[in-house]
Amino acid sequence: MHKRALALSEVYGLLETGPVVLLSTAHKGRANVMTLSWHTMLEFEPPRVGCVVSANDFSFAALRLTRECVLNIPTVELGPKVVGCGNCSGRSVDKFATFDLTPSPAARVGAPLIDECYANLECRVIDTRLMKRYDFFVLEVLQAWIDPARQDPRTLHHRGRGAFMVAGETIRLPSKMR
Amino acid sequence: MHKRALALSEVYGLLETGPVVLLSTAHKGRANVMTLSWHTMLEFEPPRVGCVVSANDFSFAALRLTRECVLNIPTVELGPKVVGCGNCSGRSVDKFATFDLTPSPAARVGAPLIDECYANLECRVIDTRLMKRYDFFVLEVLQAWIDPARQDPRTLHHRGRGAFMVAGETIRLPSKMR
Repeated sequence: MHKRALALSEVYGLLETGPVVLLSTAHKGRANVMTLSWHTMLEFEPPRVGCVVSANDFSFAALRLTRECVLNIPTVELGPKVVGCGNCSGRSVDKFATFDLTPSPAARVGAPLIDECYANLECRVIDTRLMKRYDFFVLEVLQAWIDPARQDPRTLHHRGRGAFMVAGETIRLPSKMR
Repeated sequence: MHKRALALSEVYGLLETGPVVLLSTAHKGRANVMTLSWHTMLEFEPPRVGCVVSANDFSFAALRLTRECVLNIPTVELGPKVVGCGNCSGRSVDKFATFDLTPSPAARVGAPLIDECYANLECRVIDTRLMKRYDFFVLEVLQAWIDPARQDPRTLHHRGRGAFMVAGETIRLPSKMR
């Protein structure tokens, strides 16, 4: 997928809506990906993101040790792959091969971009003070990519137990908010 | 609006999709409300939620000092009120009066529920270790309320600068995830 660099100041608009994301890592020559919905913006610029990666997840060690990841944002066409990645573990499955996802080199981190996702955020871990208590990592986005052709992306938003809200129409209201 | 208590184990399904929420507080006899999108689930049960309330916001002091708030989830009909609450400060405006929002007593906290919102989460602050650095509060949900008549609520999801994605259809994919 052809992408352009996205200004870091615009990253918040991608994550504020609460999309399911695919977090990719690479550790000891092995790329992995997990599905997550527990993330929040923490700062506009440089964009900082907090996210929960459970100590039970295979990605936890890779994230803790390499301190790098990519947040990849999928749209509804990728739904079965998103659920598939959430329903198995990288301990026993090569998820890129199993779900036919294409790893693509990142510019600033060792973890791969997932080519099929319309946006990719290259991140490094900058704070782990809430890691032990809440499995909460603070990330800083170093580089962002977006498919310039994608308007109003139909992102997935988890309601629980396999139910996903799909992003609907975009409305505009007069606002002074960023 | 008539609401029933919602099992605390089901709260995550309301917040995982990333809706804009209205955070209400009460401090020194004064109720206030602010609009926010920067929140994430941290734990299923008891439900824990992390959220950013800027030190610049009038609500910051009320939240820090009372350690209580309510997260109220609005739907699209409330859009102009949601934006209105985000575009002014409780320092100078009585937002409940100005935007014709109805405060309703909570069961477990001093902050009011906003009656017009289809769901309300009564919360107490349980951790402020990331408050100074990221304005990040960790909340525990003590009591949850929902309008039982509301299916697939058309929540608002901020894209930035007054653009809001409105929750679309819900799809189901076979999943083992909670």
